[in-house]
Amino acid sequence: MSRHLVVVLTAISLVLVSVGSRAQSGDVILEKKTFELPSYTTVAGEIIKSVKIGWEAAGTLNADKSNAILVTHYFSGTSHAFGKYAPDDKIAGYWDAIIGPGKAIDTNKYYVLSSDTLVNLNAKQSHVVTTGPASINPDTGKPYAMSFPVVSIKDFVRVQKALIDSLGIKKLKSVMGLSMGGLQAYEWAQSYPDSVDRIVSVVAAASAEPFLIAWMDVWAQPIRLDPKWNNGDYYGKEPPLDGLKAALKIVTLQSNGWEWAQKTFGTAPAEEGKDPAKALPNEFKIDAFLDQAAVARAALADANHFLYLCKAVQLAAVNPAKIKVPVLALYAPNDLIFYEPIVRETIQKISDAGASVETAALIGPNGHLNALTQIRQEAEKITTFLAR
Amino acid sequence: MSRHLVVVLTAISLVLVSVGSRAQSGDVILEKKTFELPSYTTVAGEIIKSVKIGWEAAGTLNADKSNAILVTHYFSGTSHAFGKYAPDDKIAGYWDAIIGPGKAIDTNKYYVLSSDTLVNLNAKQSHVVTTGPASINPDTGKPYAMSFPVVSIKDFVRVQKALIDSLGIKKLKSVMGLSMGGLQAYEWAQSYPDSVDRIVSVVAAASAEPFLIAWMDVWAQPIRLDPKWNNGDYYGKEPPLDGLKAALKIVTLQSNGWEWAQKTFGTAPAEEGKDPAKALPNEFKIDAFLDQAAVARAALADANHFLYLCKAVQLAAVNPAKIKVPVLALYAPNDLIFYEPIVRETIQKISDAGASVETAALIGPNGHLNALTQIRQEAEKITTFLAR
Repeated sequence: MSRHLVVVLTAISLVLVSVGSRAQSGDVILEKKTFELPSYTTVAGEIIKSVKIGWEAAGTLNADKSNAILVTHYFSGTSHAFGKYAPDDKIAGYWDAIIGPGKAIDTNKYYVLSSDTLVNLNAKQSHVVTTGPASINPDTGKPYAMSFPVVSIKDFVRVQKALIDSLGIKKLKSVMGLSMGGLQAYEWAQSYPDSVDRIVSVVAAASAEPFLIAWMDVWAQPIRLDPKWNNGDYYGKEPPLDGLKAALKIVTLQSNGWEWAQKTFGTAPAEEGKDPAKALPNEFKIDAFLDQAAVARAALADANHFLYLCKAVQLAAVNPAKIKVPVLALYAPNDLIFYEPIVRETIQKISDAGASVETAALIGPNGHLNALTQIRQEAEKITTFLAR
Repeated sequence: MSRHLVVVLTAISLVLVSVGSRAQSGDVILEKKTFELPSYTTVAGEIIKSVKIGWEAAGTLNADKSNAILVTHYFSGTSHAFGKYAPDDKIAGYWDAIIGPGKAIDTNKYYVLSSDTLVNLNAKQSHVVTTGPASINPDTGKPYAMSFPVVSIKDFVRVQKALIDSLGIKKLKSVMGLSMGGLQAYEWAQSYPDSVDRIVSVVAAASAEPFLIAWMDVWAQPIRLDPKWNNGDYYGKEPPLDGLKAALKIVTLQSNGWEWAQKTFGTAPAEEGKDPAKALPNEFKIDAFLDQAAVARAALADANHFLYLCKAVQLAAVNPAKIKVPVLALYAPNDLIFYEPIVRETIQKISDAGASVETAALIGPNGHLNALTQIRQEAEKITTFLAR
């Protein structure tokens, strides 16, 4: 695979796993649909009119609508968890390795759906439907910008619940997601214990602990430093691309690991003949890669949405002792966002409170992103867990 | 201890250990001196005129000058490794817990000296003497800014060697340092194997591996985003304080660990009545702490020096297989800057190449900063190692 393609793949979906999940003749083709709520009241009590989120699904709902699985997406992800929008799409959804006909999460057996969250990062991506600061406020005819109310993981989940209700689904077979998607799975288990049979949470704890809260602040600060951010008022003007790129570089780096960096880049200079030791601007290869990936990602993203997502993650606050449904919690020992001991703390508290919890490690060089690159290691465990 | 004092302490020296090393009647009082080289040629071949660095020392050089120990400082540190400049100084040097009369590194036995590096971060601190972008270029009468040549860890060490030579010291008993100071200790061992008897490297590997190289880029980017940075040309104008503060927040956070965050801050809001769930600018306590600490640190620091330090760390490239002198390598299992497996890689390569290497873990909640807060755990090991 060419270096350029690697950059593009990473840029779009942070998916190095795409190497292993390339197009097959049996690709699921999905259609993006829109779910709309005329009015939604946030957890904090603010009203948002005309809330729209995108969603997609494959498989067939059975007669009693008991075979639905909801996949909740990560910070920089979308509803595109598996399959393709068109047969010639170069990239399938991020968990295509485990979701599809005959795969670990078998769409011949389950009806698998996934939706874009509120304040989805990739507001400019053609297939993404979301409501956030970049959306038009019906009351003013202008983008909300910073007047958009704060939303939390719990808000994401409440909107998903309305979507599920609209489909007549009384109880989901499972909610499953990685990272911020895992936070949503825990929120489902706490908020709607009667509406979900079991959850799969990958590289996530039940809540954001203080260190993660601080990292979210660090992720957000480059955007605020960019003068083009202009306190969030940049719609119709030049967006704060430099700040957004810098923020996305942190996300890309912290989501991966030192073994990946060592194997992929070494200490080579970015350009032959431009020795990093000779001039301050002369970069190393890994820095140039992070730059390129950030350029591609930033082109589809909205900076204010990034800030709102950081806040949503900071507000994640599920009490693991209140989880009553069975949990499968996968973690990565070299994860730099949800550290193994943090995930273990969640697992221990669930177990101490008497609920059933299973766990396994995803081993690989990609840290947090082992949730994508190594997910097939635990495919069988997921299949068995869902079948119970 | 008041919250305010904690902020100041952390701001000045990243030293939570100060709690345990408060003023004693027997404090060593040190005098800051200046060492000058009329001209220095960098590793990359550039000439810098009138290079000045500050240094301080305690103890007495013995007759054959064989009892000198050089302490090399970390990224945001200075030569002030122990003791005080005046009896009423509130804070002692960062390793005062282990250096001084009767301590693990006994100044009754050893002559212990430490110098400010080139491009020292704290260029505005009254006791710091350094040469870097903020210094006046004798050829122009103006600050160098970005015209200052790139310098590396090896340059820091070459200037230290000139200082040691000027004192008539033929062979140091040891070079010891933490983090960037540990990189310098390894550089001493490789560059001057006949001039140092043994080294102590704490929370450092022999070189910067690709992941750390990328993090240095992430540390540097907020400064470049601040319009006041103005491509490094801000002397005599308003400095890029916002960018510098944002950069220092990353340093403070990544140098510590989740256990510290959990125990110290929890998920409390920064201000009573300003619920982070209610408005985007409403912060958590830990974020406000990082802000305050960064304000205090940024006031004494120079933004261009920060960028040059990032580059110097990126260029650290000692080959552990070339180390011939005995090494004591201490590491922190929860270190997020020099990960344990990275340090172990260095140790293994030194050992494979036939040199003597001892190691021990510094256990505590502060990650990388266990090198400060927990250093006394291995005080005896250091004493024994030095006495061989």
